[in-house]
Amino acid sequence: MGIHGGDVYRNRVDLDFSINVNPLGVPGEVKAALRDAVELCGRYPDPKSDRLKCAVSDLLAVPEEKLLFGNGASELFMAVVHAIRPKKTVIPVPSFYGYEYAAKAADCEIVYYESGQENHFAIMDDICDMLTEEVDLLFLANPNNPTGILMHRETMGSLLEYCRDRGIYVVLDECFIEFCGSPFSMLPEIQSGAFDNLILVRAFTKIFSIPGVRLGYLICSDRQLVHRIRKQLPEWNLSCFAQEAGCVCARQADFIRQTQNYIRRERQFLTEGLRQKGYVVFPSMANFLLVYWGESAEMRGKTLYGILLKKGILIRDCSNFRGLGNGFYRIAVKTREENERLLRCCPQIGTCLQSP
Amino acid sequence: MGIHGGDVYRNRVDLDFSINVNPLGVPGEVKAALRDAVELCGRYPDPKSDRLKCAVSDLLAVPEEKLLFGNGASELFMAVVHAIRPKKTVIPVPSFYGYEYAAKAADCEIVYYESGQENHFAIMDDICDMLTEEVDLLFLANPNNPTGILMHRETMGSLLEYCRDRGIYVVLDECFIEFCGSPFSMLPEIQSGAFDNLILVRAFTKIFSIPGVRLGYLICSDRQLVHRIRKQLPEWNLSCFAQEAGCVCARQADFIRQTQNYIRRERQFLTEGLRQKGYVVFPSMANFLLVYWGESAEMRGKTLYGILLKKGILIRDCSNFRGLGNGFYRIAVKTREENERLLRCCPQIGTCLQSP
Repeated sequence: MGIHGGDVYRNRVDLDFSINVNPLGVPGEVKAALRDAVELCGRYPDPKSDRLKCAVSDLLAVPEEKLLFGNGASELFMAVVHAIRPKKTVIPVPSFYGYEYAAKAADCEIVYYESGQENHFAIMDDICDMLTEEVDLLFLANPNNPTGILMHRETMGSLLEYCRDRGIYVVLDECFIEFCGSPFSMLPEIQSGAFDNLILVRAFTKIFSIPGVRLGYLICSDRQLVHRIRKQLPEWNLSCFAQEAGCVCARQADFIRQTQNYIRRERQFLTEGLRQKGYVVFPSMANFLLVYWGESAEMRGKTLYGILLKKGILIRDCSNFRGLGNGFYRIAVKTREENERLLRCCPQIGTCLQSP
Repeated sequence: MGIHGGDVYRNRVDLDFSINVNPLGVPGEVKAALRDAVELCGRYPDPKSDRLKCAVSDLLAVPEEKLLFGNGASELFMAVVHAIRPKKTVIPVPSFYGYEYAAKAADCEIVYYESGQENHFAIMDDICDMLTEEVDLLFLANPNNPTGILMHRETMGSLLEYCRDRGIYVVLDECFIEFCGSPFSMLPEIQSGAFDNLILVRAFTKIFSIPGVRLGYLICSDRQLVHRIRKQLPEWNLSCFAQEAGCVCARQADFIRQTQNYIRRERQFLTEGLRQKGYVVFPSMANFLLVYWGESAEMRGKTLYGILLKKGILIRDCSNFRGLGNGFYRIAVKTREENERLLRCCPQIGTCLQSP
């Protein structure tokens, strides 16, 4: 079991529920752009990403100077910590391991905020106790991974304000926001320039199902900071594949709407199916579910991870997430047919130990 | 004019002599692998690059633990400086701007070594005067870009030893070494483990003509250091395109030999042709030539860069290279047909000012 999902390289996997990409797959136009890009690989990609920047600037109604592209969101997290050089960083958990990975690269002190299962792992007001003057950086994700919890804009706004008043930068990871619909994004706050301390990070990876391509972007009102972060990125950090695919992705508004409807329906179907099996399913607004399988079954040496892997299905064992433990799993919302197959393979709680 | 060659995005260019990629183009098998990779973009690339690592390890006879891959060599330069955090870095000039770019990202003091035109810009013994105990890092390139000068293994060995004794890490950029043939590489010194302070950086970019793909690698005997550098790279830094192309590139020994013969012949042809035009051509062992066009013509407001660009040919104006100035250009060695076209468009020194 690795630190991340998606390890289809060292497992025999038929169906991968461990990674959270769009079950509708790669849009046809994006695939065509990737195929065409093969013919462009003989020249250096544009280090300024002019065409891509223009397309995304139009899509989001954000000036080009506030935009920065990365070889996946993970490269941007690294560049941000190298630019800010925080002495102390706050990371709420459970959350994506990449924040900790980036903070460690900058060799800074990390404080973990944990609200606990009784609060469905949501960030509560008491996080403010941690956000003291010595803190330089706060990582947030909306919706959060692996919990699927979504923070409302008003709450997020208050938290950003609290941080701004204390000189704390906030990296807000919105890599899954497109699955939830627009009213939850903090993009309008970037457009209005209300929060100079806000660094919004998004990716094309999940919504367009192209993790193999590597393309993320960052939006920030503080142009000086954008410039400093750029200096921490390699000069040609985007491949021609990322640039060409990105330009086409920026025109897929219909596909995103279609995805949102699809995910809403399938998330409900999968949630109900898993609850009928006796599993605890946390309320998610994203394209994945955090599931608790109970400790009793685990303790007798069986895991849902192991049972499903034997049937060629990979899910994310969350026992190595900070703030979680044995019995927690993350399961992606996939197509109806795939979700049905998963449900058929999931043992009923209390009966799984008798099954062969 | 940009800080690098290859700006075909903001110029009308028909023939690009400003970038130094293989004139034989992308090998057919590599292109096929890139096309096939489109179908893999829906899954995360292997963060451990197991298959690629195995292929390159076999090719170079270097243990996998000594290898690290990057999203182009430029990403590796950045990761190295973030891992070493040098206080003081020595960079010989003229050389690739990327070393300075990386050193600046780490915010360290940079000292430039300059041997001057009278030495054909080769590194001389007096570089040792700069390599004091306070220096943490030295960037070297073999062959050097833009000069094309190649340092012999014995000289390089002495320099590495001198640095090792003073605790100075050496990043040796061998991105163009495959164009010169193997007897010049310091790879055997990595294999023997003689220099723990040596960080060899190479790329698939130039020799396989795939700058759009982004793939470089690093070889170092110090496994602890390899581990520290890895921690400065994003977790999924290689796209599926880079991984798939890389595996196929590792089997192209014949293509490399063919390239070496081709470049040797064409470099001679182009050197002689340009000298007949009255240009100073520095002796190069690489797939590009440093050319000095004289100052007189420049001073009357015309540049070789401008004259050729009007004819749709882009060359690298080297006036913004540290250690060079007006009148210096870098010209890639391309195919015979392309080299002939370039020569036809190059004005004879002394007559160019009369031509319309």
